Amino acid sequence: MASQQFDPPSGTRDFLAGDLRVREHVFAAIREVFERYGFEPLQTPAFERLETLTGRYGDEGDKLIFKILRRGEHEASGDADLALRYDMTVPLARVVAAYGSQLPTPYKRYVTGPVWRADRPGRGRFREFAQCDLDIVGSTSPLADAEVVCAIADALGAVGIDDYTILINSRQALTGLLRAYQVPEQVGGQVLITLDKLDKLKPDEVAGELVEGRGLDPATAQALVGDLTAPDAVDRLRVALADDEEGRAGLAEVDRVLESAAPVAGQARLAFTPRLVRGLGYYTGIIFEVAADGMPGSIAGGGRYDHLIESLGGPDIPAVGGSLGVERIIGLLSAEAVTAPRLDAAITILSDEAEAMDFAARLRRAGLSAEVYLGSSGKLGRQLKWAADRRARFGLIYGQQEREAGLVTVRDMDSGEQHQVAPADLATFIGARSTS
Amino acid sequence: MASQQFDPPSGTRDFLAGDLRVREHVFAAIREVFERYGFEPLQTPAFERLETLTGRYGDEGDKLIFKILRRGEHEASGDADLALRYDMTVPLARVVAAYGSQLPTPYKRYVTGPVWRADRPGRGRFREFAQCDLDIVGSTSPLADAEVVCAIADALGAVGIDDYTILINSRQALTGLLRAYQVPEQVGGQVLITLDKLDKLKPDEVAGELVEGRGLDPATAQALVGDLTAPDAVDRLRVALADDEEGRAGLAEVDRVLESAAPVAGQARLAFTPRLVRGLGYYTGIIFEVAADGMPGSIAGGGRYDHLIESLGGPDIPAVGGSLGVERIIGLLSAEAVTAPRLDAAITILSDEAEAMDFAARLRRAGLSAEVYLGSSGKLGRQLKWAADRRARFGLIYGQQEREAGLVTVRDMDSGEQHQVAPADLATFIGARSTS
Repeated sequence: MASQQFDPPSGTRDFLAGDLRVREHVFAAIREVFERYGFEPLQTPAFERLETLTGRYGDEGDKLIFKILRRGEHEASGDADLALRYDMTVPLARVVAAYGSQLPTPYKRYVTGPVWRADRPGRGRFREFAQCDLDIVGSTSPLADAEVVCAIADALGAVGIDDYTILINSRQALTGLLRAYQVPEQVGGQVLITLDKLDKLKPDEVAGELVEGRGLDPATAQALVGDLTAPDAVDRLRVALADDEEGRAGLAEVDRVLESAAPVAGQARLAFTPRLVRGLGYYTGIIFEVAADGMPGSIAGGGRYDHLIESLGGPDIPAVGGSLGVERIIGLLSAEAVTAPRLDAAITILSDEAEAMDFAARLRRAGLSAEVYLGSSGKLGRQLKWAADRRARFGLIYGQQEREAGLVTVRDMDSGEQHQVAPADLATFIGARSTS
Repeated sequence: MASQQFDPPSGTRDFLAGDLRVREHVFAAIREVFERYGFEPLQTPAFERLETLTGRYGDEGDKLIFKILRRGEHEASGDADLALRYDMTVPLARVVAAYGSQLPTPYKRYVTGPVWRADRPGRGRFREFAQCDLDIVGSTSPLADAEVVCAIADALGAVGIDDYTILINSRQALTGLLRAYQVPEQVGGQVLITLDKLDKLKPDEVAGELVEGRGLDPATAQALVGDLTAPDAVDRLRVALADDEEGRAGLAEVDRVLESAAPVAGQARLAFTPRLVRGLGYYTGIIFEVAADGMPGSIAGGGRYDHLIESLGGPDIPAVGGSLGVERIIGLLSAEAVTAPRLDAAITILSDEAEAMDFAARLRRAGLSAEVYLGSSGKLGRQLKWAADRRARFGLIYGQQEREAGLVTVRDMDSGEQHQVAPADLATFIGARSTS
């Protein structure tokens, strides 16, 4: 049998204690921030009905859905009736449709948990990975947009990420942009898709694609790309957009978010970014992305999507949301690992097992962590080696001598120093010296 | 479209904030106990390779496995290559096989998370449900058995369950029992399966099945059932088992656990139960079950299974473990709901949105929870109604008058009392009066 038969399935991971503690630390810090903003947790099943998911993610997305075979007599048909969730947004739409009036208005919810996509596994790309979303459903207020941006900024701060920029734009500003530069309406969407490549391709390459691929006249393509990539792009675009009604509305929308988010995110971290497109998808208003210094791609993003919930089968209800790229964030952090909790006491067993269990119980009742030796050696040296391997703060010894004196020998595993302590005082003695 | 299209799939549940908080509270309390015992967390993928799971749970179990269809060009084959995990034990065996020497010895791990079984959904029976397991792999010490029993007793205490009995027996004692009553070896297993029904059927019915179904002679059947169900069953069986070598060994094993677990679980809660069988399955030593007063069935159980990990494809390594019936435990608790965290401040918006966001930021930085009004009404009355609906402790008002005075009106939403507070003092003022 090949030893890789014991590996987890391709694209998935086992998390042993060390890695898991880093992940839990990140999730807990993020959740605490979201709770301070009044977001509520939600948990939906790992799988949904197949028809709830199919057709929601485009042809490419559909191919990545893990489908679950029907069971019993239907198994032989080879048909699927269920599928693992692909994101957290479709389940949110279903929940809004199902529980409508039971939910608060607006419904502010956050969710952390795994999603599954049958992508080709690669470096940093998994088939089971955590998503961390927060959304506000049922508010058209620009303050809702700002709250999402602020909560994400605070969450990044809570996990120790400070060097980042929040790029902000709006769909209306993009529409205004196309009009200000007289891009023919019928190629507008395609032009935006090409402009979205400005963070990866050279300006000339993008201009070339606009002319050859999208049919823009060369002067328009040059003007667009030139202005968007100029050092004073923001000033140029503010002037250009001010000429168009949609452009002005988009600018006003962006400015409200910039102003409202500044007290939390800090003005210097917020950047109106006229070339930010963020796909064409379902966004209808503000869009944003968080770029961390020295990292390609983004570590968070989101925007307003006022008709998505309806298109997913829910009611027509406005919404704005964001997503933290938790797997990338965890990747940034795991080097400076979260310190594992240290075992307070390792209890050796020389003769009296019931006494050892009693010592352990006394310590645990006081909230301390304690382990009893479960190996087969009767030798103190071997047992103290175990205590050291477990990185215990203290080792407890209770042999013949100790029993006669009615005292436990408590050994500081770092210094080797030993104290005689009465059983009734064990928890106080160790608790006072515990680092946890 | 039928409205049930928005229900979660059959046998699964959506957990909105209230229910989810109860669940998280239970899981957190249990995890904290397990950590005090030095158990480490583990997380494995939701799905395993199909061949890792098939053949592990018997024919009936195999039918309940959710299988995942192959993808891409293989989808049309109707074949499955992956399957949702059915329990936490097979993944543990795989992890022990995969990471052997990287794991501590013994490897004490706990796990909480969902498993999936395509059972017919029914009252209290779900297709996606949480399991909560703890296991010690790599120790043959009876203290390991006792530690598992103690950790479960402490975990029950931590979630507020105190009225329960821990029924303890051992596989060796059962073998001794069969020998002491001269049950023919070839029907021994079948006889135990019938005796396992003593908690559901009348003694006469069980004795009848032993005679008719298993072919025991009536005198033996009567003696067995009579002794096992007598008020002084424990005394009778202690005498009977003392006559047989296996019986004596089983008794000694039981007595060691009774003695070692007493400091934690309390002697009165521990009951040697000679008729406890707990299936025939994979147990090789101590077995136990926790019965809660007034509830049918058990809320926890486990035992020693020294060869299971090998039979699941792992190395031959001794193990003992237990499982808490968390869904049942949560069912017991949800009535006395965990109190939801109360919103510290609801901030109304009369004119200055940036100021409102700034007040929210000040409070959140101090660890308080704050929400900003995201609705469309400009009327204070409507906004205060929102604050009351959100069950906020305080409502903040900042209108023309307040702006001129440079003070925020802080309204106690319970008493209606109002204070004027400087923006810089908001966090201190509310923090001092916060209940959270």
